[in-house]
Amino acid sequence: MIDFMKVDEILYAALDEDMPFGDITTEYTVPADRISEGRLIAKESGVIAGLPVFSRVFELVDPDVEITMLKADGDVVEKGELIATLKGPSRAILKGERVGLNLVQRMSGTASMTRRFVDLVKDYNVKIADTRKTTPGLRYLEKYAVRVGGGSNHRFSLSDGVLIKDNHIAAAGGITAAVTSVRANIPHTVKIEVETETLDMVKEAVAVKADIIMLDNMNNEMMTEAVKYIDGRALTEASGDMTEERIVSVAATGVDIISIGKLTHSVKSLDISLKF
Amino acid sequence: MIDFMKVDEILYAALDEDMPFGDITTEYTVPADRISEGRLIAKESGVIAGLPVFSRVFELVDPDVEITMLKADGDVVEKGELIATLKGPSRAILKGERVGLNLVQRMSGTASMTRRFVDLVKDYNVKIADTRKTTPGLRYLEKYAVRVGGGSNHRFSLSDGVLIKDNHIAAAGGITAAVTSVRANIPHTVKIEVETETLDMVKEAVAVKADIIMLDNMNNEMMTEAVKYIDGRALTEASGDMTEERIVSVAATGVDIISIGKLTHSVKSLDISLKF
Amino acid sequence: MIDFMKVDEILYAALDEDMPFGDITTEYTVPADRISEGRLIAKESGVIAGLPVFSRVFELVDPDVEITMLKADGDVVEKGELIATLKGPSRAILKGERVGLNLVQRMSGTASMTRRFVDLVKDYNVKIADTRKTTPGLRYLEKYAVRVGGGSNHRFSLSDGVLIKDNHIAAAGGITAAVTSVRANIPHTVKIEVETETLDMVKEAVAVKADIIMLDNMNNEMMTEAVKYIDGRALTEASGDMTEERIVSVAATGVDIISIGKLTHSVKSLDISLKF
Amino acid sequence: MIDFMKVDEILYAALDEDMPFGDITTEYTVPADRISEGRLIAKESGVIAGLPVFSRVFELVDPDVEITMLKADGDVVEKGELIATLKGPSRAILKGERVGLNLVQRMSGTASMTRRFVDLVKDYNVKIADTRKTTPGLRYLEKYAVRVGGGSNHRFSLSDGVLIKDNHIAAAGGITAAVTSVRANIPHTVKIEVETETLDMVKEAVAVKADIIMLDNMNNEMMTEAVKYIDGRALTEASGDMTEERIVSVAATGVDIISIGKLTHSVKSLDISLKF
Amino acid sequence: MIDFMKVDEILYAALDEDMPFGDITTEYTVPADRISEGRLIAKESGVIAGLPVFSRVFELVDPDVEITMLKADGDVVEKGELIATLKGPSRAILKGERVGLNLVQRMSGTASMTRRFVDLVKDYNVKIADTRKTTPGLRYLEKYAVRVGGGSNHRFSLSDGVLIKDNHIAAAGGITAAVTSVRANIPHTVKIEVETETLDMVKEAVAVKADIIMLDNMNNEMMTEAVKYIDGRALTEASGDMTEERIVSVAATGVDIISIGKLTHSVKSLDISLKF
Amino acid sequence: MIDFMKVDEILYAALDEDMPFGDITTEYTVPADRISEGRLIAKESGVIAGLPVFSRVFELVDPDVEITMLKADGDVVEKGELIATLKGPSRAILKGERVGLNLVQRMSGTASMTRRFVDLVKDYNVKIADTRKTTPGLRYLEKYAVRVGGGSNHRFSLSDGVLIKDNHIAAAGGITAAVTSVRANIPHTVKIEVETETLDMVKEAVAVKADIIMLDNMNNEMMTEAVKYIDGRALTEASGDMTEERIVSVAATGVDIISIGKLTHSVKSLDISLKF
Repeated sequence: MIDFMKVDEILYAALDEDMPFGDITTEYTVPADRISEGRLIAKESGVIAGLPVFSRVFELVDPDVEITMLKADGDVVEKGELIATLKGPSRAILKGERVGLNLVQRMSGTASMTRRFVDLVKDYNVKIADTRKTTPGLRYLEKYAVRVGGGSNHRFSLSDGVLIKDNHIAAAGGITAAVTSVRANIPHTVKIEVETETLDMVKEAVAVKADIIMLDNMNNEMMTEAVKYIDGRALTEASGDMTEERIVSVAATGVDIISIGKLTHSVKSLDISLKF
Repeated sequence: MIDFMKVDEILYAALDEDMPFGDITTEYTVPADRISEGRLIAKESGVIAGLPVFSRVFELVDPDVEITMLKADGDVVEKGELIATLKGPSRAILKGERVGLNLVQRMSGTASMTRRFVDLVKDYNVKIADTRKTTPGLRYLEKYAVRVGGGSNHRFSLSDGVLIKDNHIAAAGGITAAVTSVRANIPHTVKIEVETETLDMVKEAVAVKADIIMLDNMNNEMMTEAVKYIDGRALTEASGDMTEERIVSVAATGVDIISIGKLTHSVKSLDISLKF
Repeated sequence: MIDFMKVDEILYAALDEDMPFGDITTEYTVPADRISEGRLIAKESGVIAGLPVFSRVFELVDPDVEITMLKADGDVVEKGELIATLKGPSRAILKGERVGLNLVQRMSGTASMTRRFVDLVKDYNVKIADTRKTTPGLRYLEKYAVRVGGGSNHRFSLSDGVLIKDNHIAAAGGITAAVTSVRANIPHTVKIEVETETLDMVKEAVAVKADIIMLDNMNNEMMTEAVKYIDGRALTEASGDMTEERIVSVAATGVDIISIGKLTHSVKSLDISLKF
Repeated sequence: MIDFMKVDEILYAALDEDMPFGDITTEYTVPADRISEGRLIAKESGVIAGLPVFSRVFELVDPDVEITMLKADGDVVEKGELIATLKGPSRAILKGERVGLNLVQRMSGTASMTRRFVDLVKDYNVKIADTRKTTPGLRYLEKYAVRVGGGSNHRFSLSDGVLIKDNHIAAAGGITAAVTSVRANIPHTVKIEVETETLDMVKEAVAVKADIIMLDNMNNEMMTEAVKYIDGRALTEASGDMTEERIVSVAATGVDIISIGKLTHSVKSLDISLKF
Repeated sequence: MIDFMKVDEILYAALDEDMPFGDITTEYTVPADRISEGRLIAKESGVIAGLPVFSRVFELVDPDVEITMLKADGDVVEKGELIATLKGPSRAILKGERVGLNLVQRMSGTASMTRRFVDLVKDYNVKIADTRKTTPGLRYLEKYAVRVGGGSNHRFSLSDGVLIKDNHIAAAGGITAAVTSVRANIPHTVKIEVETETLDMVKEAVAVKADIIMLDNMNNEMMTEAVKYIDGRALTEASGDMTEERIVSVAATGVDIISIGKLTHSVKSLDISLKF
Repeated sequence: MIDFMKVDEILYAALDEDMPFGDITTEYTVPADRISEGRLIAKESGVIAGLPVFSRVFELVDPDVEITMLKADGDVVEKGELIATLKGPSRAILKGERVGLNLVQRMSGTASMTRRFVDLVKDYNVKIADTRKTTPGLRYLEKYAVRVGGGSNHRFSLSDGVLIKDNHIAAAGGITAAVTSVRANIPHTVKIEVETETLDMVKEAVAVKADIIMLDNMNNEMMTEAVKYIDGRALTEASGDMTEERIVSVAATGVDIISIGKLTHSVKSLDISLKF
């Protein structure tokens, strides 16, 4: 679900970025009273995400544009399938088109990649999660797209989750010291995750009752051993250059979560076009 | 060159997005007076873009972080190469790290992809250009990254360039009517580009003295013929699903510009990491 | 045409500037349920511009105010003519009145001055253009008002047009160097204009194929000679202290465009009042 | 005195308006390391206002620009006089030039017109005051410029002064009712002004102890009589189409304040230029 | 009366503060189509203020929430009384609840405390006024709540009232010098208040015709004497640690206004809850 | 620790709220070059919080104000103790004074109340926590003040903690359904808290492995029983009208956390003054 209070700020900025002084092509070629019908069509197959955002663009540009959705966020579309139809003032459709497409294509790209990973590991009890490697300014929408694709969110920001990394450990004087200090100070509603690279680190994290243990850049063997050692005493999260090739073998180690930066940092936009 | 008046707005929003209520891990593991040294290292080869933005993040978080740049925007880096060193309060480095990396990785991804296309066509007198298919909110930085990669910018927005597409042509009643109306009304400082799909359209665009003619989704044969017909009377721009495989053959048609949406809409971030 | 996404930001700021803590006169003299009718009347003759902005003020203050427009932007009004009628909550009309009038009066002042210049040169094939000497924050509306008055816009900003002035020429090492460098780097959608003060400069600009040549502060004889020399190889723009007295003689030199700073920097507001 | 917290918001918006995507002329003609010296020169005589704003533009664009002021706000400058010198990166000076000039020219235009009115009535004990007919977004600066010119400010907004006009009187059921209601409700720190058009209205306003009585659109005879009647029991303010021709005779009626809308709504910018 | 242009800015910020990444509890427990009815109930007796703000929260979150008000701002409510009923999408009601309550509880706390003071002195002709000791960002709403409680507003800001305190007096060289300088420079619509601590200061303030004289931290005897001396030549304002115990005796001194900082700086929220 | 990126936004808004058109008293009584020394003094005893915010106000108003801190956030001050000294331009000190005091007084009020509760239960292993009943716009600062007072933070917002209340339970069809649905969907970094009012609800919450169980409005006997039943299988949080009178007996029930709304919703500002 998308809260438009969040989205509107992004959209106003995007529309202003794209029209600091109006759309000089449209205003002098298209009569103000001309009505157009448009069709939003998938040009490749994937998972759609961001349709409410796409609609919202036109509500902001001109509320007279009517949109009929034939698909909903999370639906799989095939190449050539009709996603939505638009009808309204031609000028408004042309002015909003690019901003609307730029967002729905990116979000669908993320949802589609997420779904591919999710489908690959569907036989395992594991979640595919995102990271904080999102596009600055668009995290709210990108985290939403990951959920639409069937994935799960890692923490939203530095404020709502603890992830104690090597530098924190070094600064605090060890895992135990770091976890103890954090536990005494943070909101009691937030879990504590510790990043580990060796089994010794895993053992210390378990001993200090970390809620989540990240197994960072471990090979599958070490991960299997770590999961076995942890044995449900903490959630386990595999991290580090996860590819479609490797993901199934990682899932087989028994980890609870696999986090994948590229869901948001290296997305191929889904090809979607607006035909008149 | 980057104007920080533009960048700061993006960075303040990004930092607020990542820390609505502070960095709860760092504040309770890292002493306020701890100083760290960090090294920004390329984990794969590519073209660097966005180093001034990366620096600026830390200026905003804490001006006491000192950064020494060993590379500059546009430089090629090899896997493992040192890009920059940082020294300053550990807390500030940890707080700014993700926002800084998120931007420099994306921008370097765009610059690197641009450079690959530019290198492929280096024997031809042709420019590789971007489009308006940019990330909402980041167009200023992404267009900059394209230039850093050796590419050229298409129009920045709907306000600073005319591109008469099929819908505009239909609404205006033909290419001639569209160009004539636009020419009479827009700032005299802006060129007029017409999107064409057939040779007849090309001929009409030449006749009405369009400044730029986009050859949209044509095959190489038709493009060659179009370029020949136009014969310097307008700039020619090839557009439509340009791939690394096809690009050289397109350049060989003699077009002046090849515009490529994926430079900004489907970027693989360059892998760069900050080591302490 | 005016995009309200642009206007609303100006209006919210203007209303806040005029009512940081409410309208203390109206709230204690006018009952909340009182309805008033108002008439917007021209107190001198001129060209009206900004009526959609005037309407928008009241939509924002209170959507219950109904406005009936009897004139449209671009219409000539005579002294005493009725422009529009308003009906709605008295408080809202009183609160929005000043902001609405402040904008429509200024915009109509610009449109009226523009129309006077346009009418003076109506026998010549020349455009009357504005400059960047606009009021900070109101450029979008002032450039619109110039168009409403029959004028043409020069570039909107430093980003959407190139104007190579004496300082740029000096820094680049001459007109040829400057144009060559710019041409290699800017979006291919933007024209290049060179400011010239002598015939030698004009010749160099023509030689390097500048798209537009500004004839800056030349007397009519030199301009005539320059236009003759250029002979259609570039657009010609006359610039520099253009007055109503001189403008016809400048048009007679054959220039394509005459740009006039005072259309936006020294405007006498059109006298318009709101009567209840 | 100018508070930069107020000014910066105006300047950031103005610079963004003028450079949504950078200064494409300067960046490709002027080397990044080039230093220029500029001179700010009056091209006509008048009163300077806005020099701190002009300086601030360059502080924001690039703090390396050094400015030496030879004049201060309120000084009279003659045609050709040097106002300030600038030294610093050429790019920064070129980028900030237009925004800086646009503001200082308008503000000096207001200060100069104000000074002319002030000088005309210097033999009378009367203040020249502005109105709320200011440019939306620039009221803070324009009210400052009026003070610089020797004028006085009327209320800043609808929140900090009461002005009971005809519509308020009608809605409240008469002057006495209006003043009584307002007096009971507003902050005790604010005065109450009543707009009058006849002597009967003046008498009622005096009877109800209005602090200020506006004599609106009265001829000089009626104003003289009103001032005599009021006899110091309230401040008197003359209002309505005050011209340089009429102002001395109005001052002679003995009013305390003469308010003049055109000080801010119809200003001729003072001609000032920046020479390199 | 509340202008929503002012309120919306506060509410958007508050909602964003409370939901930077959505309401993760509600979204996964409450179906999107579920409708709830809620009742806003007073859990202690007091004066209600802020109901239009409470309503506005839900208009912004989801316009489908319908609210029926059974009370209006300024009404006294008893413990257990029903204030309003809500009906609409459960998700929206849950998302807006906290922000709505946080504001209406604080505002009602201020209105209730104000009413208590007003009631205590109801036999005297004295106003209970607020100060500038308001919550940063909420002054508009808090000053409104004081009025709802029957109190009166002191100046809104440093811009709309003059209060010459000891430091100003010292800097200016005495009360007479300070008042004279201020009178010559400020808008003629604003009164001048002088803070006094001794009878000699009072006498000097009267002599220089201050409009308002603040009797700061005086005991009742001195205040009585001061009021007697002033004898209607200026408004008198008592200030300094006013408590419910002392207020009646202060009113008995004959002062016109008693200003009380705690109306806004030390408020106990009125206990109000939203039941489903 | 306070991040100034967060604070500055609050301060700019607060300063603009207090000076929409400047400080008209100070500007005409205090010479621009006058230097003052000020002393920040506690007028009652308590815990100081917000000194970095107080300092920041003056950095923004005028960086020439130098502040020497004699106390730090968290220190106990006694009545009459000196907290800090200021030296710098008198105008800047007077302009920033009220905004600075308004914040430090409120924050210190929260810290002081928190400390009182913390001290009362110091013999028990229990945390005193805040709630989301904060002042809209100031949550970041108020949550910080609670920490300064020795308290602990509950969730920052609806995005970073799950609290399943009665309405969520009803909508989801029971505690088990609600927890199960939430657990499947939220970030794995966030804990799940369930609000319970009966022992049966407690048992269901334990059974479904809630991380935290809120014992809402229970009497001490029921709480004791609940804590005993839960026996460390979840964190326990006591909630509901906690007073200084009752708090020790609540702590004695063995709960882990006691959350108290009034720490932020009903704060008495600590009396602190700035003397010159």
